[in-house]
Amino acid sequence: MVTNCNVLSVHTMTFHHTNLLIAEGRIAAWDRAVEKGKEVIDARGSYAVPGLIDAHTHVEAAMLTVEALARLLVPRGVTTLMADLHEIGNVLGGAGVEVLAEGANRVPLRLFLQIPAALDPEEATRLLRRPDAVSFGEASLPRIVRDPDKFTRMFAEAHAQGRLVSGHAAGLGAGPWLSALAALGHADDHECVDIEQAKSRLLVGQRVMIREGSAARNLQSLVPLVREHPEWADLFMFCTDDRTVGDILERGHMDDCLRSAIRYGLMPATALRMATLNCAVHHRLDTHVGSLAPGRLADVLLLDDLEAFLPEMVIVGGEVVARSGEPDWEAPPEVSFPEAYLNTVHLGRSLEEGGLRLPLPDGEVSVRILRMVPHQILKYIDEETVTVRDGRIHEGQDRDILKILVIERHKGTKQIGIGLVRGFGLRRGALASTVAHDDHNLVVIGVTDADILLAVKSIEEMQGGLVVVDQGEVTARVALPLAGLISLKGGPDLAGELQAAERAARDLGCLLPAPFMALSFVPLVGIPKAGLSEFGLVDAVTYEKLPLRIGRSTDIFTAADP
Amino acid sequence: MVTNCNVLSVHTMTFHHTNLLIAEGRIAAWDRAVEKGKEVIDARGSYAVPGLIDAHTHVEAAMLTVEALARLLVPRGVTTLMADLHEIGNVLGGAGVEVLAEGANRVPLRLFLQIPAALDPEEATRLLRRPDAVSFGEASLPRIVRDPDKFTRMFAEAHAQGRLVSGHAAGLGAGPWLSALAALGHADDHECVDIEQAKSRLLVGQRVMIREGSAARNLQSLVPLVREHPEWADLFMFCTDDRTVGDILERGHMDDCLRSAIRYGLMPATALRMATLNCAVHHRLDTHVGSLAPGRLADVLLLDDLEAFLPEMVIVGGEVVARSGEPDWEAPPEVSFPEAYLNTVHLGRSLEEGGLRLPLPDGEVSVRILRMVPHQILKYIDEETVTVRDGRIHEGQDRDILKILVIERHKGTKQIGIGLVRGFGLRRGALASTVAHDDHNLVVIGVTDADILLAVKSIEEMQGGLVVVDQGEVTARVALPLAGLISLKGGPDLAGELQAAERAARDLGCLLPAPFMALSFVPLVGIPKAGLSEFGLVDAVTYEKLPLRIGRSTDIFTAADP
Repeated sequence: MVTNCNVLSVHTMTFHHTNLLIAEGRIAAWDRAVEKGKEVIDARGSYAVPGLIDAHTHVEAAMLTVEALARLLVPRGVTTLMADLHEIGNVLGGAGVEVLAEGANRVPLRLFLQIPAALDPEEATRLLRRPDAVSFGEASLPRIVRDPDKFTRMFAEAHAQGRLVSGHAAGLGAGPWLSALAALGHADDHECVDIEQAKSRLLVGQRVMIREGSAARNLQSLVPLVREHPEWADLFMFCTDDRTVGDILERGHMDDCLRSAIRYGLMPATALRMATLNCAVHHRLDTHVGSLAPGRLADVLLLDDLEAFLPEMVIVGGEVVARSGEPDWEAPPEVSFPEAYLNTVHLGRSLEEGGLRLPLPDGEVSVRILRMVPHQILKYIDEETVTVRDGRIHEGQDRDILKILVIERHKGTKQIGIGLVRGFGLRRGALASTVAHDDHNLVVIGVTDADILLAVKSIEEMQGGLVVVDQGEVTARVALPLAGLISLKGGPDLAGELQAAERAARDLGCLLPAPFMALSFVPLVGIPKAGLSEFGLVDAVTYEKLPLRIGRSTDIFTAADP
Repeated sequence: MVTNCNVLSVHTMTFHHTNLLIAEGRIAAWDRAVEKGKEVIDARGSYAVPGLIDAHTHVEAAMLTVEALARLLVPRGVTTLMADLHEIGNVLGGAGVEVLAEGANRVPLRLFLQIPAALDPEEATRLLRRPDAVSFGEASLPRIVRDPDKFTRMFAEAHAQGRLVSGHAAGLGAGPWLSALAALGHADDHECVDIEQAKSRLLVGQRVMIREGSAARNLQSLVPLVREHPEWADLFMFCTDDRTVGDILERGHMDDCLRSAIRYGLMPATALRMATLNCAVHHRLDTHVGSLAPGRLADVLLLDDLEAFLPEMVIVGGEVVARSGEPDWEAPPEVSFPEAYLNTVHLGRSLEEGGLRLPLPDGEVSVRILRMVPHQILKYIDEETVTVRDGRIHEGQDRDILKILVIERHKGTKQIGIGLVRGFGLRRGALASTVAHDDHNLVVIGVTDADILLAVKSIEEMQGGLVVVDQGEVTARVALPLAGLISLKGGPDLAGELQAAERAARDLGCLLPAPFMALSFVPLVGIPKAGLSEFGLVDAVTYEKLPLRIGRSTDIFTAADP
C-alpha cells in the first residue's frame, strides 16, 4: 500500500489525493479511508503516476543486454518497452530475438515484442503467437514493395490473431502510398517529422508515435499539434526508436521525452497519458499496464516534481525496484549466452593485403564515391576522377577518399563489397565495426590496407564489436560479443568504452561527430542515395548496382576463388 | 467507389471532401483526383460516415430474429452490434447463443458477441474463442458475489485471450465495490444514470457506454459530461441495451441516439466518433470497423443532414444494402430452426384448477404482496391482511391484488412459485408470458383460476409467447416460438401483434403502460426489493426466501407429487 499520494488518473488526466492499495502485484483500489496496514510506503504527498511505456524501441541501439539496460531505464521511470528487436533478428533470426528478450524475465522491466517483419514469415508468425507479442514491427515501403504478397499474408495473419502491424513511412506525405500502407494494416507511424506528416497519419487512421531518439528528434516539431488539439488526446504516444547508452546516461530516455514535452508546452497529465495509457490501449495491453486504475499491474512512479521528472521511487508489480535514481535490485550474475550467439563473425578465410586491391586499373579513372554528411543519415554520391596506383587511390586521404569494405560475416561466403567513401576524414589508421544496418556485416574503412587488415583481424578475435587501429596498433576496442551487436558489460562501462573509441577515431582525424553510427549506416541500402552492401554499391531507389568505376558494368570484388 | 462525398474522419473529427475508393469490401483510399471507374456511386456532396455500432445490446429485447432485426436496423444506419445474447443463453445455453447469432451470416449486419457470463464456464470459455467474440458479457455484482472464484477464473481467461470483460454496476457509486469490479476486470459500464456515476467509472479505468434503451434512458443526463470534456472524447460510446421492436419502429435505434446526442448539444462529429470508432477501439476491432480510414471494412452511410440522421444509402462491405430507409436485399426464405429450439415449454404435467390454490388457510391472514410501479423496474413489498376463502383472496381485484405464478417450463420439474402481486390492476382475465428474466419461466397473473389455466394452456400450445385471456376467451396472443422469446415474423408484423396484446391487456383494466415488460421483471430476483422465482418470493439482497404468509416458514407450493 502507498499512502498519502497524489494519484494521476491517466484516463481523466486529473489528480486525486488518496491511498493506493496493492494486492498480488496489481492495483486493488484507491481508498482515502484505508487503515494503515503492515507494508506501507508513505509517499508524503508526492505524485503517483504509472510507469512509462516506450511505444517503439530497438533495444540494440544501446548495445546493452536487457538486464543492463533495465538498470538504466527503470530508475528513470521506464517500466515497459515495446521492443522491435530487429537488429539481433537480422543476425540470429527468431532465436536471437527470443534470447535477447529472455533477459526481461530477470529484471523488473516489462518487454513486449514488435516481431521483426523481416524474419522468415513462418518464424515471424510463430513469434507473433507469443503472449508478449503485440505486433509485427516496422516494415518500410521499399521492403513491402519488393514482396507485397508476403507482407499481405503476414499482416492478415496478425489481424486474425488480434495483433497489430506497426508502420514505418519515413518521408511519405499524404497520398496513395500512405493510403496503401494503411490499407495493408499499418496502425501507427513513428517516422513523422512535421505536423503535416502527423496529420496525414491520423487521417489514414493511424496513431502517431512521437519519436525522440538519439539521432532523430521530432518532439519539438510535433508537440504543438497535440497542444492545439486536446480532443485528439488519445491519438499520440512517445517513443525513442534508437537511443544510445551515452545518450541515456546523459539525457535520459522516456523521462527525457516527458521533460521535453512539458517544456514544449504540454500539460504534464496529457504528456503522461501519451507516455502510458495511449500506448497500452494502442497495443491492446490496457487491462495490464499504462494506468493506476484498479486491476492494472502496480507499476508506480513516486515523484515530487512532474517537470523535473526524477522518480524518487519506482515500484514494479508492487515491489520497490529503484530509489532516488538507483536500481534497488541485485545485478544478476554475469549473463551467459549459448556459444553460438557469441560466435557470429565467420569470414570464411583470412584476408590478405593483396586481396584488398581496388578493382581499378592504374591511371586516371572516373569513380563513384559515397559521401557522408554530419548529422544526416542520407548519403550522397560524388563522381570524380582519381589516380590509381597499384590498386590504391593515390593520395586518397588528402582528398578525404577512403577505401571501404563490407564483408559478409555470418556464413563465411567470402562475399566482399569494396568501394570508396568520403566524409570520415581519417588521416591515418582504420575503423571497423560489426554494427552495420540492416545485415550487420563487417564494415571497415581505412587509409592503409595493413591497418584495414589489422582492424578486421581484431574484430574477428573479439567475435564482434568496434575497433580503432592507428598505424599497426589497436588504439581502442569495444567488444560486442552477442551477435556482434551487444556488449555484456554494464551501461556506464560500455559508455566509457564507446567514448574512448570515438576519441581514438578523432585522433585519426575523423571529422564526423558519431563515426561508428555513420559507419553503421553505410551498408543501409534503403536510405538514399545509395548504400554499400557485400555485393557493392546499390541505388536506394532502384536497388540496381552502381559500379565503382563509372562506365564499367561491374566493380564487385568476388573473392570466392582465392 | 463513392465519388463527391464529405467524408468524416472519426479519428480527427473533421470532414474532407473527396472520393472513397473501395476494394474487396474495404476502404482502399481517399483520393480527390481519382478517375471515374465503372462502379461509381455519386454521393452528390452528401456526408459519408461510418456505419453505427451499438456497444451493448440484448437482441432478444426486440423479440426478433437477427434476420428480421437487420431489416429494421441497417436502413437506419446501424451496421454492427455488440450483442450479449444472454436471454436465449439462459434458455438454450451456448447452443442458443450460436443459433441466434448465426442469423447474422444471412444479412448485412455485423454481430460481435459479448459471451453471456452466466453460461456454464466451460461453455462460455469455448464461445469466447469464436473469432466474433469480444468479451464476457455483463455480470452484475450480486451474481459475482455468489461465486467470485468462478468469475475470477473466467475473467483471467478472457484477459489471457485478449478479450474484455464487460461491466454492469447498476446503482453503484464510487467506492470499494466499484473498485473491486474494476480489479476483477470490468472494462466498461452501461448502467450509469448520472454524471457522478459516469465519472466514478472513468476513474476506475472503465469506459462509459451511454445507454438509451426503451426503458432506461441515460443520454440526456450524461451528454453534458462529454460536452464539457472534449479531452475525454475516446472514453464514451453509445448503446441501446434493450430496445423493443415498437420503439425501434417509432423512435429508431442508434440513429435515435445520434439525433438525441446532437440535440443535447454534442457536435455531430463527436457523437459519431462515440457511435463508431470508440466502440471499435474498446472492443479491439478497430482494424476492421468503426472508421472510413483505409483498410477498414467499407461500411458507409451517405446522408444529407447529420442532425436528421436519415441515411440515404447504406453500404456494408462495399455493397449497397439499403436506400432511403428501406432494406435493399431480399428477405431470406422463412428461417427454420432445429425443432428443439422451437419446443421449449415443458411443464411436466397438466395444471388443474385445484392445483392453483393459494397455500393459505381460510380467514384473515397477513401476507406479502409484490408491488409494481409504472416506469420502474424496482419492485416493492406491501404487508397486508387479506381475507382468504377456499384458497383465493376474497375480492382481491377490488384491492388490486392478483394471484401470480412462476412455473418452471424448461425441464418439466413441476416447480411452481405462487404469490400475490399488485400494480397490474386487472379487473378480469389473465396475462401470461414466457419472457421472464432471467430464467424465462412461464409467468402468469390473473383474476380467476380458470383464466389463469387457459392462459397457461395457450402458452403451452404456442410453445412460448404472450397471451391475454378474458373470461374464457383468448383475446390476444403473440407467438414467440424460438426459445419462448423470439418471434419468427418480421418487425412490423410483430409490432402489430404486440400492440394488440397491450390493447387487450388494457381492456382488462391493466394500469401499467407496458404490462408484459412489467410481467417479465417480476421473476428478476436480483432487482430490489424482491422477485418471485419458481421457488417463491426471494429477497433481492440476501437471496433469502420470503414466505407469502408473514410468520410462516414456507409458502412454496410444490406440486411434484400430484
